[in-house]
Amino acid sequence: MIEISVGIDIGGTNTLIGLVNRKGESLIETNISTNKHEDINLYFAEIADEINKAMDVLGEGYHIVGIGIGAPNGNYYTGTIEYAPNLNWRGVVNVVDLMKKYINTPVILTNDANAAALGEMIYGGAKGMKNFIVITLGTGLGSGLVVNGDVVYGHDGFAGELGHTIVNYNGRQCACGLQGCMETYVSATGLKRTYLEMLAYFPFRGALSNVAPDDLTAKAISEAAIAGDKVAIATFEYTGKILGQKIAEATAYTSPEAVFLFGGLAQAGNLIFEPTQKYMEEYMLNIYKDKVKLLPSSVDGANAAVLGASALVWKELEFPRKR
Amino acid sequence: MIEISVGIDIGGTNTLIGLVNRKGESLIETNISTNKHEDINLYFAEIADEINKAMDVLGEGYHIVGIGIGAPNGNYYTGTIEYAPNLNWRGVVNVVDLMKKYINTPVILTNDANAAALGEMIYGGAKGMKNFIVITLGTGLGSGLVVNGDVVYGHDGFAGELGHTIVNYNGRQCACGLQGCMETYVSATGLKRTYLEMLAYFPFRGALSNVAPDDLTAKAISEAAIAGDKVAIATFEYTGKILGQKIAEATAYTSPEAVFLFGGLAQAGNLIFEPTQKYMEEYMLNIYKDKVKLLPSSVDGANAAVLGASALVWKELEFPRKR
Repeated sequence: MIEISVGIDIGGTNTLIGLVNRKGESLIETNISTNKHEDINLYFAEIADEINKAMDVLGEGYHIVGIGIGAPNGNYYTGTIEYAPNLNWRGVVNVVDLMKKYINTPVILTNDANAAALGEMIYGGAKGMKNFIVITLGTGLGSGLVVNGDVVYGHDGFAGELGHTIVNYNGRQCACGLQGCMETYVSATGLKRTYLEMLAYFPFRGALSNVAPDDLTAKAISEAAIAGDKVAIATFEYTGKILGQKIAEATAYTSPEAVFLFGGLAQAGNLIFEPTQKYMEEYMLNIYKDKVKLLPSSVDGANAAVLGASALVWKELEFPRKR
Repeated sequence: MIEISVGIDIGGTNTLIGLVNRKGESLIETNISTNKHEDINLYFAEIADEINKAMDVLGEGYHIVGIGIGAPNGNYYTGTIEYAPNLNWRGVVNVVDLMKKYINTPVILTNDANAAALGEMIYGGAKGMKNFIVITLGTGLGSGLVVNGDVVYGHDGFAGELGHTIVNYNGRQCACGLQGCMETYVSATGLKRTYLEMLAYFPFRGALSNVAPDDLTAKAISEAAIAGDKVAIATFEYTGKILGQKIAEATAYTSPEAVFLFGGLAQAGNLIFEPTQKYMEEYMLNIYKDKVKLLPSSVDGANAAVLGASALVWKELEFPRKR
């Protein structure tokens, strides 16, 4: 029998489902709309249907060993999603129990950034590493910390929110209610805010001065920087400086072997890696200098979130956590 | 046979040695000068002599199961002290090998703040906790992080240097070479610097305006605050604000069940605990609010460092680390 881990990534709009083998190959992928059903039971019933259909396509000889789910605010300890700002569901939803109602197999939940960290550990560049950090750069900034070979969930299951550590207590307003959170600087949204700030700062126009703020994208800023736009280049330099300073800080906490950058902004390559590398070394305490590797995620790509979620299952089977 | 763990605390001036039973009772304590011997071998030979003499005093029925050593820059993985700024020894010293030359028993080394964290876990208020942080407030600021029941040593053995995370990138010069480190604000030295800054800020004199900066002590500032000196009260408020902000930050990393304050400044009681508690909640991300306990260390006191070092041995015997 070939063992299959089902990876599910619950996003604000779409839910991705993948049947993944132990090597990290996603054999079949499918997706459903996250918000189609008013009744959350129907949503999980539809996921179960999709999984069963996909297993039928694979045919004989395949066996599901578990389902891993990555979701915003997903709590590993309780199996619940609590008050996720981007999801339609109200209050506290026990995702693990709901999923098990429709498919009787072990179900494990965590948040999307922790899933990315597990994906990196099981299939990617962190194989064999015991201490590393994954920073996911999307609309916001997520993070998964791994210490002594285990994801850090903390006392309440919500550890690893580096996006809401502070860069500047008098800095930008964050949607979370705090001020100066790293996420307001280092993320696709943060990059756009910085571009606007740089336009305000410089006496000359930028290549994107003719684009309304509503229409500005991280991709356009990245392309402008490559084409030589001084405003866009300064935007990446500033973003990398803050990220580098924060990686130096994170090192003083958990002293990782490597920090992986994952997601859209990480695709900007040298534009983001060069300043980040420079400033992380500049702001690193002496004992840590030239020790921490800054690497692109090697699980990055279209189905990375599904792979990360599926990695939860292999991790639990192979290295069960002490609880 | 009654099992004894020997705890050794290597300080810049004195080396404290204690014979500790499993309950955390220090049965005999003694100490030697850290810098008496030019030859480091003679230093460890003298420690061994002291231990043997103390065992003779205890008499029959006692058995040493191991030696735990806490020291600045002590590295758990390598058993070495590397370039400790406050010690006489040059370069990298293998403390574990040297100690074993004179007493053939398991020897375990860590830094003093990690030893304090283990002391809290084995004998103190963190019994049964899997995720907590100890912050040691002395001349500087040390910290020990515990995640999933293990001290966080990180990839290189030097994790948990919260004293050198940054409060303000344009802030005070730190002896480490960085600028704005938490240690320059939150420590006995930091408190004195803040008192001077507050004297510069206010238009009125403080109760300690007649004391030369060289002669200023954290204790005097604490007494002045209790007596109602506005400058001293503002000094503690400011110190607690920064510590509270930093505990909110630390929570976003490891989401601890509790944070313990240990050492001299923690003895200031409400003067430091009240503002710290207030500001840590104010700056806490919503999901963490009202979850993290702020507590005084219950191992604090004259022999706390020795107890912490001895706890290394029990921890290793009872919950050996995966390596």
